Amino acid sequence: MASKKKVCVVGSGNWGSAIAKIVGNNVLAQTDPFDTEVRMWVFEETVEGRKLTEIINNDHVNVKYLPGIQLPKNVVAIPDVKDAAENADILIFVLPHQFVRGVCKQLDGKVNPGAIAVSLIKGFDVADGGGILLISDVIREMLKIPCAALMGANIANEVAKENYCEATIGIKVKEHGPLLKDLFQTDYFRIVVCDDETTVEVCGALKNIVAVGAGFADGLGYGDNTKAAVIRLGLMEMIKFCEVFYPESNQSTFLESCGVADLVTTCYGGRNRKVAEAFVKTGKSIEALEAEMLNGQKLQGPPTAYEVNYMLKNKKMEDRFPLFTAIHNICKGNLEVQKFMDCLKNHPEHM
Amino acid sequence: MASKKKVCVVGSGNWGSAIAKIVGNNVLAQTDPFDTEVRMWVFEETVEGRKLTEIINNDHVNVKYLPGIQLPKNVVAIPDVKDAAENADILIFVLPHQFVRGVCKQLDGKVNPGAIAVSLIKGFDVADGGGILLISDVIREMLKIPCAALMGANIANEVAKENYCEATIGIKVKEHGPLLKDLFQTDYFRIVVCDDETTVEVCGALKNIVAVGAGFADGLGYGDNTKAAVIRLGLMEMIKFCEVFYPESNQSTFLESCGVADLVTTCYGGRNRKVAEAFVKTGKSIEALEAEMLNGQKLQGPPTAYEVNYMLKNKKMEDRFPLFTAIHNICKGNLEVQKFMDCLKNHPEHM
Repeated sequence: MASKKKVCVVGSGNWGSAIAKIVGNNVLAQTDPFDTEVRMWVFEETVEGRKLTEIINNDHVNVKYLPGIQLPKNVVAIPDVKDAAENADILIFVLPHQFVRGVCKQLDGKVNPGAIAVSLIKGFDVADGGGILLISDVIREMLKIPCAALMGANIANEVAKENYCEATIGIKVKEHGPLLKDLFQTDYFRIVVCDDETTVEVCGALKNIVAVGAGFADGLGYGDNTKAAVIRLGLMEMIKFCEVFYPESNQSTFLESCGVADLVTTCYGGRNRKVAEAFVKTGKSIEALEAEMLNGQKLQGPPTAYEVNYMLKNKKMEDRFPLFTAIHNICKGNLEVQKFMDCLKNHPEHM
Repeated sequence: MASKKKVCVVGSGNWGSAIAKIVGNNVLAQTDPFDTEVRMWVFEETVEGRKLTEIINNDHVNVKYLPGIQLPKNVVAIPDVKDAAENADILIFVLPHQFVRGVCKQLDGKVNPGAIAVSLIKGFDVADGGGILLISDVIREMLKIPCAALMGANIANEVAKENYCEATIGIKVKEHGPLLKDLFQTDYFRIVVCDDETTVEVCGALKNIVAVGAGFADGLGYGDNTKAAVIRLGLMEMIKFCEVFYPESNQSTFLESCGVADLVTTCYGGRNRKVAEAFVKTGKSIEALEAEMLNGQKLQGPPTAYEVNYMLKNKKMEDRFPLFTAIHNICKGNLEVQKFMDCLKNHPEHM
């Protein structure tokens, strides 16, 4: 008999806590094949004089990052990532992407060799030599285990409130698909599994660039037609990006929740859009607006635009991605935002 | 030497007038191959004591349907559709779809046999025997000329103001593509031509059903995740609908402006969404809300949902289109709107 699958959530922010709630309830409802304890790595901090792990383990609420939402009692907060991940069969990575390498370094040699990882992290890792790496590539290379990606139109607070939504799991090792679907799907959180892991993950990173463009269009006072064109041209550049750099990518993946649905949500509701709109209206820098509007948090769109441009420029491909390129140049102050639409007038899509 | 191509715009509403402005300017700028006069059929009515055709021909403004926008002087308003269409080489149909058969009947035998039509009309025609016809099919059959479709995220007033946007032309007779692109494209109105005419046209009709669902989600108080799921599942049913009923349809057409871009715009900004939201919040009937909110105009979403359902029910295919089916049943009062999300929980996309 195979032993029960132990699950560890590596991260405990807003989205990490929401996903721990889902996974915690799901393992309780499916004791075959899952172990009933879900360990969650919590970066220890003190909240109103108490340790955050202690609050989560006693009160079953992450008061700092997901207040007001009851977590299942079988979600156990653990302050040392090595303890949390010990013997885990499924490692769910859900933390800011700048922490991935540090965490993987701590876990190096400590991970169950038969384990599988799932990344919920949005963004790229800058590689040596002018290219970029996927976060799942970093996890695969550092931990030497397979890594899937879960992405979708999933604002954490809405998922935690159990509002109906969808997500996409991309997984190369097809036989693990049903296990992960069982682990994540609920009647309000609907999962589609596909084997195009790369595209699932790339969508999650690139959509934030497009959302900055949507915010520029809003800030410039354009209406629905223009915003729709920016979103669609952004989608076409996302597709082109995958065709060029990940030729195994499948166009139909862009129709999943990770693609068009997450893109739309981010371009209408997300913070990249909001700050980009304010950038146009106030004339302040992105950095100043982050400090002012995001309580010190950082946007993902402008650095992703930078990373992508770094590679496109190296490969002399900026002309093929005029939207990504214009957004980067505007964020960096090298192009007036009023010129944004001019950059789209001779888009390769219209040739 | 081929004679100059004469262009006629059959219709002069909000969108018809906006497109006449574009076409009028374009033929002036391209006297090879176009004749410089653009005839526009105007259903004669009296506005403040003057005939609408006279106002358009003297003041060059359609004060009733596109006030404040100057039309080029070479756009000539003509009250008799047979006079307007006489000798035309390109007939642009842009009028409410219930008038198409009547107009085509008047034009029967009067149309230049070498002419081509372009339909900008959104909706289906109910066919004898329980099926539906495309509007372009009606035009093709009644006038015996080829018919292309132009669709996209094109709110008429924004196009008339020359805000940047995109549109898609679907055309089966490929060699006419460049001619139509020259006729419609400007530096702010960007055209992609494809040969998948059917999908281009079907998208324009079905998106209005999905927009009703998006309005229900808004009215029920759901957030961005749920709305994104409704839009995406709607898109997947649009694709499935084409796969089943128009098997020559190409999935990539859904990524054009006529597909995802127009869908998104309609689900965020359109009147089908708006009335559907009010339907949930007020408990009034669709008919009552149309009278109250739309100044007597009719929504396209609910009748299109009816037409589609009529065919799906006949073919015993309702289960394969749970979103279209639920929206129709809610509009008809056969299903409580509070049950809308329940209908999506076991969507075939999640199997």
